[in-house]
Amino acid sequence: MTAQLIDGRACARALREELAVDVAALRRDGVGIGLATLAVGQEYGAGAYERRLRRLAGELDVPYRHRALDGATTLPEVLAEVALLNADPAVSGILVLRPLPAHLDESVVFRAIDPTKDIESVHPENAGLLALGVPRFVPSTAASVFHLLDTWLDSVGEDRTDFYHRANIVVVGRSNNVGKPAISLGYARQATVQSVDEWADRTTGIGRHTRWADVLVVAAGKAGLIRAEHVSEGAVVIDVGINARTGPDGVVHMVGDVDFASVAPRVRAITPVPGGVGPVTDVWLLRTTVTAARLAAGQPAPSLLEVP
Amino acid sequence: MTAQLIDGRACARALREELAVDVAALRRDGVGIGLATLAVGQEYGAGAYERRLRRLAGELDVPYRHRALDGATTLPEVLAEVALLNADPAVSGILVLRPLPAHLDESVVFRAIDPTKDIESVHPENAGLLALGVPRFVPSTAASVFHLLDTWLDSVGEDRTDFYHRANIVVVGRSNNVGKPAISLGYARQATVQSVDEWADRTTGIGRHTRWADVLVVAAGKAGLIRAEHVSEGAVVIDVGINARTGPDGVVHMVGDVDFASVAPRVRAITPVPGGVGPVTDVWLLRTTVTAARLAAGQPAPSLLEVP
Repeated sequence: MTAQLIDGRACARALREELAVDVAALRRDGVGIGLATLAVGQEYGAGAYERRLRRLAGELDVPYRHRALDGATTLPEVLAEVALLNADPAVSGILVLRPLPAHLDESVVFRAIDPTKDIESVHPENAGLLALGVPRFVPSTAASVFHLLDTWLDSVGEDRTDFYHRANIVVVGRSNNVGKPAISLGYARQATVQSVDEWADRTTGIGRHTRWADVLVVAAGKAGLIRAEHVSEGAVVIDVGINARTGPDGVVHMVGDVDFASVAPRVRAITPVPGGVGPVTDVWLLRTTVTAARLAAGQPAPSLLEVP
Repeated sequence: MTAQLIDGRACARALREELAVDVAALRRDGVGIGLATLAVGQEYGAGAYERRLRRLAGELDVPYRHRALDGATTLPEVLAEVALLNADPAVSGILVLRPLPAHLDESVVFRAIDPTKDIESVHPENAGLLALGVPRFVPSTAASVFHLLDTWLDSVGEDRTDFYHRANIVVVGRSNNVGKPAISLGYARQATVQSVDEWADRTTGIGRHTRWADVLVVAAGKAGLIRAEHVSEGAVVIDVGINARTGPDGVVHMVGDVDFASVAPRVRAITPVPGGVGPVTDVWLLRTTVTAARLAAGQPAPSLLEVP
């Protein structure tokens, strides 16, 4: 079997085109859309993400501002900045870039974000609404995993409802921003879902679980964690990992948590890294910024679960 | 193999004794403990639960009050009652009994409860804190499932940490008050967890998943859903179901979601119905009422995850 490549860039492009039409219509109606990002200190990954969002916001004509605070900024100072963004009617969505410096408790910062502007769904109220199956917003990466799956199912003519009702979705990794919300999105699709964390790797081995996956979502942050022996033939594999690795040529490149070379020949479909989940995630954050603006303006918003 | 019986009544008794000591000490310190329940309309199950809680509160010397509203009470009237309980310093915990009549949206009522008095953790903020792994309170039934498991593991000399790290915990049923919080408690124990809902039963069959369970938690609300062929030898089975069934003698008795007669001979340990999860759940709600009083008084509370 040769796996189909699930093309994240094409998926992101289609989403961006839809979104551009949406933004234009909303701006014509005078709905205030605005994305604000906040960073404390300088971190390479956060900086790269910020630059991608800035460019994308520009392309989509979404007003964008970035506030870069010194790495030594105190918690009260950070909270004061968040309060300013909360109060600003030109800002519909707020993203606090991670990681924060060690002296700042991120849960305190997240709790300070106005839940109606909390586009990454990091405030406990929004995490709770998602857990209860009635999300206000959905964290971008988990949402993108399922948007890619949905889009791929449509492209191969599979009925989404039937597929999910029969599917065992195994999620490797259990972070608050990716693994856990992905499980909640699996609930919403009435799939069987299984959450495997790193302990299983150290004890009974993750293959015991991952080999039974119809859909395998890997968000563990470990390059090459999933190899051929961990997957079943016919599985659909979504690789969320982005790990920097220096090749034999001395050049740093990005690889996923899945050993693509050995896994791809066995499975039905797989996302590449780069060019898989990542590009969709960036657009999804802008899409949620627009959804937040719509909700703030009292307009109906699209279903965030995207459940058929 | 003859299964060990996991004795919920003995477990509840031990928990109640601990709690009685705790209550006495807190009352000596002048900490205000009080449980308030609120029912709208008359429902048999809710009424029976209310009477059990009233008796238990009396035995534990916890001040208790019950507000019974007419089934036609409007939403604003219900919200006004909740507001009174929120404002009352003698009330540390509030339980809104379910089900509410069809004309009341329970999510609106739940959102109105002061999160610091929301002992069943139904407010989105509390659901979110649990989903994020930092619970303020834990829903009683899910907490009781793990308290029973923990207690049983101790009794047979198994190391909790090692057991959970190796365990595949399968939860059948996906309600907001039992199935989903049980998955979150499995996360906290770093176990592998799998959530199976009724769709799997209609399509590929739940046995495909439940047969791989080291721990099988069943909270589906369907009498006899789990039979011998659905479990592996050596599994530990926790039956959350309570279903009324009329026997051949014409007498109504309570049975679980697990067909005890066929399953018990195959597994390592199993909870009976009645006498399993139920008795622990009642005490747990009182325990959380006491925890809420402690938190309100600025005292340290026990770890709610009970993770070793």
